[in-house]
Amino acid sequence: MKISCTKEQLNHAVQTVQKALATKTPMPILTGIYLSAFDEKLELQATNYEIGISCIIEATIEEPGTVVISGRYFQELVRKLPGEMIEISSSLEDRTIQITSNQAQFNLLSLPAEEFPVLKKPTSDTVINVKDNILRELIKKTVFACSTDESRPIFTGGLLEINQHEVNMVATNTHRLAIKKDHLGHNTDSIKMIIPAKILNELARIMISDVPMDVTIYCQKNQVSFAFDNIYIISRLIEGQFPDYNKVIPPSFATTITIDTHAFMDAVERVSLLARDGDYNIIKLAFKNDCVIITSNNPDIGKACETVTTIVQGNEVEIAFNAKYVTDILKNISSEQLVFSLNTPLSPASIKPIDDETYNYIITPVRTN
Amino acid sequence: MKISCTKEQLNHAVQTVQKALATKTPMPILTGIYLSAFDEKLELQATNYEIGISCIIEATIEEPGTVVISGRYFQELVRKLPGEMIEISSSLEDRTIQITSNQAQFNLLSLPAEEFPVLKKPTSDTVINVKDNILRELIKKTVFACSTDESRPIFTGGLLEINQHEVNMVATNTHRLAIKKDHLGHNTDSIKMIIPAKILNELARIMISDVPMDVTIYCQKNQVSFAFDNIYIISRLIEGQFPDYNKVIPPSFATTITIDTHAFMDAVERVSLLARDGDYNIIKLAFKNDCVIITSNNPDIGKACETVTTIVQGNEVEIAFNAKYVTDILKNISSEQLVFSLNTPLSPASIKPIDDETYNYIITPVRTN
Repeated sequence: MKISCTKEQLNHAVQTVQKALATKTPMPILTGIYLSAFDEKLELQATNYEIGISCIIEATIEEPGTVVISGRYFQELVRKLPGEMIEISSSLEDRTIQITSNQAQFNLLSLPAEEFPVLKKPTSDTVINVKDNILRELIKKTVFACSTDESRPIFTGGLLEINQHEVNMVATNTHRLAIKKDHLGHNTDSIKMIIPAKILNELARIMISDVPMDVTIYCQKNQVSFAFDNIYIISRLIEGQFPDYNKVIPPSFATTITIDTHAFMDAVERVSLLARDGDYNIIKLAFKNDCVIITSNNPDIGKACETVTTIVQGNEVEIAFNAKYVTDILKNISSEQLVFSLNTPLSPASIKPIDDETYNYIITPVRTN
Repeated sequence: MKISCTKEQLNHAVQTVQKALATKTPMPILTGIYLSAFDEKLELQATNYEIGISCIIEATIEEPGTVVISGRYFQELVRKLPGEMIEISSSLEDRTIQITSNQAQFNLLSLPAEEFPVLKKPTSDTVINVKDNILRELIKKTVFACSTDESRPIFTGGLLEINQHEVNMVATNTHRLAIKKDHLGHNTDSIKMIIPAKILNELARIMISDVPMDVTIYCQKNQVSFAFDNIYIISRLIEGQFPDYNKVIPPSFATTITIDTHAFMDAVERVSLLARDGDYNIIKLAFKNDCVIITSNNPDIGKACETVTTIVQGNEVEIAFNAKYVTDILKNISSEQLVFSLNTPLSPASIKPIDDETYNYIITPVRTN
């Protein structure tokens, strides 16, 4: 192989695929980036079998071929190379890869390219197009609610559900649940799949176009692929049945509170300062006629009490939550005011933006004495 | 105690003293910030016996008194409080401290104030004034060369040496040595003391005035105090005899190279990418007639080679260094060109800015085969 390309494009491609590199693995080949040069294109791939990412850039190909380079060193090196152009060539004799840019010359040992589990360009009978800005928003508003407990894998991923022209994403760790809905603008096949949270986060990180662009979703048996621009990402799916989340949403509420999002968030964050240690991560909310009193009490540190003005419709109620589950949603609500709906101190509550029926967050209270 | 003050001033004071808080200590009182309110002033203190910091701010004192508050929670809380003004009052009955700002009210458990080892305002027969910008530069240019090996404490500090109107700071870990010199502009007492690197770093962090201001140094038996603005910092000194650093500086050099600082630094950083793993942190420099060739060789990863144009006066020479010791000084040289002076592959070399005789860095080469 002998090629040249711009540093800018190569660096973009390396940064894109590097998140699929394996770190701790008994298979060294998975710590490498696969480079394949054919037809004036250079394709980079990385995979750890959980996620695979491919990115294709333009290159001048003097000799086509494939090589695998240690991902860790290649990514640091490419970022720091001095010139605008980078030349890469491989020598079969000593299994090294020469990387040259201006006065800098590096010879990295190569990994055996024939061992690399090359990703195949996705194809499928079920193909769905979604705009990247919609997909990004669905992920951002829900993925934080996933569980990190690997013993119950179904909750470590987000449910992507497409039905005709509706698209939903749902995530839960069984103590809180986030739902975000949107419209595709066209009818399409129906799908339902649970995608690992890690991969949703990567996807949202990589989809950063200024202008909305199409993402093509290829649904296969136990994997899904997202293709856009010059990139495709292949992810395994989480198997199992996602619980019926509609059952979790209370059909009605006895108390509905309208509250300033920022004032509430700042107060909750301060009160939770004293709620974080050890087993104590609990804040209490007392919804009164025209205000909510937020308190925490940590016998080893002290007490906190804040009052925020609200509009309360319905019964006064006192309720306790895990402070983190409250701040998590408050960070994701972009409207100036939010609606907090409750029934009893032991039944699930709902937090949603005041002006957005497509976003909902269900949170289970904590029992206190 | 009952006082009120601005959040801005209190936050500044807390951030200033908090670096002297003990973290791991068998004495809980040292994890607290001592507040003392008298004569329209609020003084904050923290100490871990290694370093003590005091900061005085204006306050409205309704009831004078002293309290000690858990440093960890107080600093986070003060930063996040909602109002411009903060009220602090203590209740003797339940040993709590009430902190109020707008609608926020916190009750923190207090620590027993009578146990706090109160810092005394420094006095001394030997008093020296230095401008803070001079002191900051002396520290910044040398402190990185200190050792972190506590088994040889003398090298974990910087030597501050004042002799008539000259002021020097010197730091070494025995493999490299940094010297920075300056002038006081006035004659003063002579002193020689070794100050722990940690405390020098804190001092440089706290002295951030825009306009040069006087720092008063009080030299006591086994401690030193720095007073400026509304702050004083007390540090223990490291006991022992600092080696005669003048003996380490070679009197003459067989080869002198002038080189572009940035081009050299970038090349060294890239080449050292492949030199960092495990025992390998070695780069080789081959000074030729009109260039330096920088190389590294890591059998597990690969090889690097860079060429940078130089002006070489004297013999051609090949020499090897610990890559980190070279990059450390290159980051601290602000002139566009530097002078690299050498004798043989096994004798100490010097790196200094081209236009600054007050700064010098001596580095011992590494023996290679």
